[in-house]
Amino acid sequence: MRLAELSERSGVPVATIKYYLREQLLPPGVRITAKQADYGEEHLRRLRLVRALIQIGRVPVATAREVLAAIQDESQGQHARLGTAVGALRAGPQPDPDDPATAAARREADKLLTSLGWEYGMVDDYPPYRTLVAALAALARLGYPYDTGHLLPYARAAEALAVCDLDLVEEYESALEQVEAAVALTVLYEPVLLSLRRFMQVQESERRFVTGRQGG
Amino acid sequence: MRLAELSERSGVPVATIKYYLREQLLPPGVRITAKQADYGEEHLRRLRLVRALIQIGRVPVATAREVLAAIQDESQGQHARLGTAVGALRAGPQPDPDDPATAAARREADKLLTSLGWEYGMVDDYPPYRTLVAALAALARLGYPYDTGHLLPYARAAEALAVCDLDLVEEYESALEQVEAAVALTVLYEPVLLSLRRFMQVQESERRFVTGRQGG
Repeated sequence: MRLAELSERSGVPVATIKYYLREQLLPPGVRITAKQADYGEEHLRRLRLVRALIQIGRVPVATAREVLAAIQDESQGQHARLGTAVGALRAGPQPDPDDPATAAARREADKLLTSLGWEYGMVDDYPPYRTLVAALAALARLGYPYDTGHLLPYARAAEALAVCDLDLVEEYESALEQVEAAVALTVLYEPVLLSLRRFMQVQESERRFVTGRQGG
Repeated sequence: MRLAELSERSGVPVATIKYYLREQLLPPGVRITAKQADYGEEHLRRLRLVRALIQIGRVPVATAREVLAAIQDESQGQHARLGTAVGALRAGPQPDPDDPATAAARREADKLLTSLGWEYGMVDDYPPYRTLVAALAALARLGYPYDTGHLLPYARAAEALAVCDLDLVEEYESALEQVEAAVALTVLYEPVLLSLRRFMQVQESERRFVTGRQGG
């Protein structure tokens, strides 16, 4: 298809597609004349993924490029590609090495991950690890509880969600499409999960403080 | 305590505390001389909460002010305050009224919330509702599945998390502290949950694609 059709089918403006092409977030089409190129279904799919990363995940362009490189790195097996691509998506705050709470948070993170069966070791520069450590250090610094007992229910919820996520991923045929879907669904289901958590908190608060008249 | 001690105990620089005071994110201390004021434990607690909102939740100052106003609104019961305060925390993208996917996403959101026992009606300007609709519209636009069957496991996980969240909240004594804790824990456990989801996705991917040699 031509650029105009790619734009129409994806809902992404032509100027934005050209920007993604310049930034190498989208591979070039097959050149047919000096001024025209032809794009295929894989461009449409890639464009949707870039859109998910940038518009919904608010991922910086450099990070998006890194995630896409990991997805396409055929020297790696599917599992390794998924781990690198999903890991490259930043999830939140980064740890402050000068904060005394960071060392204790790292110990607690390691303990939690070990108890969950995590066997890859604790790679200090793996973004989800950095986010987890920073988040635990913030809980400590602000005086909120965060020991393994408090963290385990969140880990169990994450475990159940990962099973759903991979079930969705396995509905796609090729290894490439599966890794793409893993990245897209990680990003796209995040706001679903966070907004539902707020709805359910309000519902649970009603149950405790209004209907049940428990507590305060 | 004086400003210097408040800064030391909270770990927040004096200049930042002065900024929060000017922005009315922190109530003024009790003036003791023309140049000095006295601050209490409630200032320390409030300062921690402001820190959680702004540094970890990356909440804009105007939103933080709105959340704090809801927390302190004593004309409302505890449950209403919690709902307004937690709801005011923006969770993600906002719906595009011109997008044809938005109307269908709204119907799906309503169906899901009804099936979860949500009884408050669908308030179009409640931020978690707007986020949910925008996220569902993005899934549809990008060609990913999002019907009730796919969404329910995320909703069930959110429900389980809400029970944990409220268990933590009920450990605090006064109604004010409980609402403060609900807001702080909503924000602070978000990066914990999102990073753990990534760890567990990688672990689940290993189970399926390496250990079990299932799928691709």
